[in-house]
Amino acid sequence: MKKKVPQATIHRLSLYTRHLGELEAQGVDYISSDKLGEGVGANAAQVRKDLCIFDRFGIPGRGYPVSFLRQRLAKILGVEDRVWRVAVVGAGRLGTALVSYSEFEKQGFHFVAILDNDSAKIGTRIGRLEVADISALEGIIRSENVEVAVITVPVNSAQRVADMLVEAGVRAFLNFAPVKLNVPLHTVLRNVDLTVEFESLSFHLINY
Amino acid sequence: MKKKVPQATIHRLSLYTRHLGELEAQGVDYISSDKLGEGVGANAAQVRKDLCIFDRFGIPGRGYPVSFLRQRLAKILGVEDRVWRVAVVGAGRLGTALVSYSEFEKQGFHFVAILDNDSAKIGTRIGRLEVADISALEGIIRSENVEVAVITVPVNSAQRVADMLVEAGVRAFLNFAPVKLNVPLHTVLRNVDLTVEFESLSFHLINY
Repeated sequence: MKKKVPQATIHRLSLYTRHLGELEAQGVDYISSDKLGEGVGANAAQVRKDLCIFDRFGIPGRGYPVSFLRQRLAKILGVEDRVWRVAVVGAGRLGTALVSYSEFEKQGFHFVAILDNDSAKIGTRIGRLEVADISALEGIIRSENVEVAVITVPVNSAQRVADMLVEAGVRAFLNFAPVKLNVPLHTVLRNVDLTVEFESLSFHLINY
Repeated sequence: MKKKVPQATIHRLSLYTRHLGELEAQGVDYISSDKLGEGVGANAAQVRKDLCIFDRFGIPGRGYPVSFLRQRLAKILGVEDRVWRVAVVGAGRLGTALVSYSEFEKQGFHFVAILDNDSAKIGTRIGRLEVADISALEGIIRSENVEVAVITVPVNSAQRVADMLVEAGVRAFLNFAPVKLNVPLHTVLRNVDLTVEFESLSFHLINY
């Protein structure tokens, strides 16, 4: 893909795919851009604009074929018949909650390792995983073929952990530490910043 | 505020505020839009555009006064000298992780209740909070003056919980259940959808 796809479009692709899965389970064959938008909080024009970046999926007079479109979008998102191998760095409450959440596995994100530097945590079990020593990070990333890393360490270790992960060959990062990480251009970083989300709520409560 | 402020701007206001706090701690008095942007991954024009929605904060030839701007932005975000009372519905691993994370308290979001419908969880302690029975939700929301609710229940209970919270008078929601919730127009809803974040990573890995 040459053209940069807007992040908001990628976000909606996920939501469309999920909604199409629900429709598929209900036995719906075709859906209009109007109804598909309604299911994810977007309007029909937005749906058409998002989808036509990739192909012409609609069938005039009938709408989008639900099952076909779901499969195509899942493929575009990289989650059709594909499992991504994920490591979590930071075995605190959040890291533990994430590796224990079975929904990610269902969506094709398979946790293969969780690491920490706390000797009280190393060697303990979280579900089927054993917390590994962060000093073994590079070897584990390589032997487990980790492609995606989740960073749930405190702010002051987050950049160091990111550097170690980049060095070990990881190219995709989901960062929960509330800090701006510097990663190389050939990698992709998404930040989940919960303080920012809380502040967005308070902004609305105060201003509207 | 009459004009609708873009969500991306509100998001960056949080990041500016945090970065200004770091600069303040380092004893920095003034900062250029260029440098402020650098600290949060935005360019100078974007910084100026975001800030001029609210006021003219810059001083020609010197830049933005760090401490003053931080205070003003914190006020705009509703987090200056202000504590928001937060309830978490769903005492699973994620709900537990959230109420245990001290960073939110520091930012002015004070957890006053955590509720669940699981009798094995009700009455147990998570830090200083005791898990309350969800059937007591309305009374707790009112007596504790809860303004913000965090929803960490499974998908199939999320809408019912949102309805109960709206009924009890909550106006701001942070939803972690991967489902589109319907809430009234006078409320504000933010979704934290981790599957969408993972899929955004896989999209980039597959397509670029």
